[in-house]
Amino acid sequence: MTVKQASSGERSGRSGDGTTEGDGATEATEAAGVTEATGAAGAVSERGERSVDDEEVHWLSPIEQRAWRAHLAAHKLLEHRLDRELQPFGLSLNDYEILVNLSEITDRRMRMSDLAEATIQSRSRLSHQISRMESAGLVTRETCTDDRRGTFAVLTEHGWATIQKVAPHHVGSVRRHFIDLLTDDQLVELETAYAPVVKHLKGIR
Amino acid sequence: MTVKQASSGERSGRSGDGTTEGDGATEATEAAGVTEATGAAGAVSERGERSVDDEEVHWLSPIEQRAWRAHLAAHKLLEHRLDRELQPFGLSLNDYEILVNLSEITDRRMRMSDLAEATIQSRSRLSHQISRMESAGLVTRETCTDDRRGTFAVLTEHGWATIQKVAPHHVGSVRRHFIDLLTDDQLVELETAYAPVVKHLKGIR
Repeated sequence: MTVKQASSGERSGRSGDGTTEGDGATEATEAAGVTEATGAAGAVSERGERSVDDEEVHWLSPIEQRAWRAHLAAHKLLEHRLDRELQPFGLSLNDYEILVNLSEITDRRMRMSDLAEATIQSRSRLSHQISRMESAGLVTRETCTDDRRGTFAVLTEHGWATIQKVAPHHVGSVRRHFIDLLTDDQLVELETAYAPVVKHLKGIR
Repeated sequence: MTVKQASSGERSGRSGDGTTEGDGATEATEAAGVTEATGAAGAVSERGERSVDDEEVHWLSPIEQRAWRAHLAAHKLLEHRLDRELQPFGLSLNDYEILVNLSEITDRRMRMSDLAEATIQSRSRLSHQISRMESAGLVTRETCTDDRRGTFAVLTEHGWATIQKVAPHHVGSVRRHFIDLLTDDQLVELETAYAPVVKHLKGIR
């Protein structure tokens, strides 16, 4: 499962290799708990081949692992589904995101560097993306001669018409596969929980 | 921002175009609330060019939009950061995920179709991914002659050593940029909120 991203870091190897030190009983219990939570991950520890110094690593607790896995699984499955439901319109989720950004801005144009920042991707990846969308007639590139900071991505009429047509369907997908499955309280909790994560990560970009 | 994925679907155009029908006051308030929450998205409605029939679309409420945007922003920023912190080890986040899956399985091998299922991606995308990892010496492909169901991806000794070396660092990243920023209660809430989403999406894959 994709959700095991951090699970290979289970520390159960410690309880079996006889090298456990410190407050023994507590640590053994902790280790057993983690093993239980990681499921198939046990294969790693059963071999007893872990080479890293577990004493220095703060592995995830069962609760932490389950939350992390849930976040990853939900996002990946959702991304896959939303992408799939955009396919009949000839769009990928990335295309959609670019179209939304451009459609929401006055003049429907954004400097490439700003668009890369807004969509959280590298300039080079965005450039490839925009080339594909240019071929599809959704956007054009324009170079502003007065502005040394370079090239703009501009929404075409076809791009505008496309986002107008697709948005209601996409919102329906988001609602069906995510929003409507959560209570209002859960939605508020989600926003509250993620706020410091978003702030932290934006701060170190 | 990437988090506007569903925000182009604001219904504020309704309040300005004089075509609002039904329980007028309530709808006008709703529309105003959504406009406020979408911020820059207002550009779409100001033009008054929305062509879709808003009466039939159940646009996201302010709370729903904020939760959805928070989820998207948190995930995208996190993915970007985790990917970046794996780069010094010559791995992408996708590489890491494959290595974890193979390392957790007995014999460190998985049928390609199972691996595609586990990592929530198409067979063709996984095939490209495995080719790149094969070049890097992390995995090999093996065809089982007894088994018509095809090819296996197998973790190499180098792949095994790599995941052992990288896992502690990756767990550190996950903790620093996500887990340690949430309270235990929030982690539990997160898992609870996502459980039905994951179940639903797995059910329709």
